Amino acid sequence: MEIHILRLGHRLPRDERISTHVALVARAFGAQQMIYSGQHDDGLESSVSRLVGNWGGSFIVRYEKNFRKVIKEHREMGFVICHLTMYGIPLSDKIIEMKKADRLLVVVGSEAVPAEVYHLADFNISVTNQPHSEVAALAIVLDRLQDGKEFGFDFKGKVRIEPSEKGKKVQKASD
Amino acid sequence: MEIHILRLGHRLPRDERISTHVALVARAFGAQQMIYSGQHDDGLESSVSRLVGNWGGSFIVRYEKNFRKVIKEHREMGFVICHLTMYGIPLSDKIIEMKKADRLLVVVGSEAVPAEVYHLADFNISVTNQPHSEVAALAIVLDRLQDGKEFGFDFKGKVRIEPSEKGKKVQKASD
Repeated sequence: MEIHILRLGHRLPRDERISTHVALVARAFGAQQMIYSGQHDDGLESSVSRLVGNWGGSFIVRYEKNFRKVIKEHREMGFVICHLTMYGIPLSDKIIEMKKADRLLVVVGSEAVPAEVYHLADFNISVTNQPHSEVAALAIVLDRLQDGKEFGFDFKGKVRIEPSEKGKKVQKASD
Repeated sequence: MEIHILRLGHRLPRDERISTHVALVARAFGAQQMIYSGQHDDGLESSVSRLVGNWGGSFIVRYEKNFRKVIKEHREMGFVICHLTMYGIPLSDKIIEMKKADRLLVVVGSEAVPAEVYHLADFNISVTNQPHSEVAALAIVLDRLQDGKEFGFDFKGKVRIEPSEKGKKVQKASD
């Protein structure tokens, strides 16, 4: 499945770290790219691209001021639009339908999501109806979509970790 | 299962939002309390306690400067100590063992985790060996421990959400 993330309303400095976490979760759990709206942030883009350079894969982050355009273009490319919100229908009720999509755009809000997003989305999905974290909600959704396969992804990076019971084992490819 | 979270090395202002997300995920996914070390932060404590007041449950956040003391006391109370780290053994290899615990202390690091934490822990657990987010890692671990039961928790709060296909439906108990 092709998965893109749309992160709405990025604000500086407030969302610097949360949006970075959203991007890194997207990458680690198998999405191909994150588009973000709100404020442009060179630091977000360069920190993710530096990490991809070391840890592998081809994940990209790009900015698009107009989130409506992102949704419209993705719909035209055949993406199903899934908005994560604590007001939505529980993931477990919709996961089977969501898995039928070949291409999925997962929309991740910030503090104030415009009402129209709820209507532009094919699915409004909640990961519990409690307030918690868009980072956690995204991780749970991607984990369910991947059936846990993210634990087996090989990013073929310059840096790799060898899992260990105690301490840190890092392998560095000589390039 | 009784679940406590230990958030290490909270720094202001850098970790304000991430630590809040850790606390809210802990609550929403069924932990009973979060203890944090690092810098004391009244804002973190009051924002979580305000949220608990509205949304229900009895989750608490408390500060303890000395994280070694927290681990030691929890071990004495019969808690199994599980440290989340991307250097650790995949969750899927250890989840059956972890579920046998009646009481679990989940240790969530920040930027620089002292080496001794890896040795104090009974389990060093990774949610993929890729860099992403302690918020996401915690959510995945708690989701697996709860077998997804977090979707059915009732916090009996003053505010409740009625899941909806489009838009927001909020119920407020008159108190």
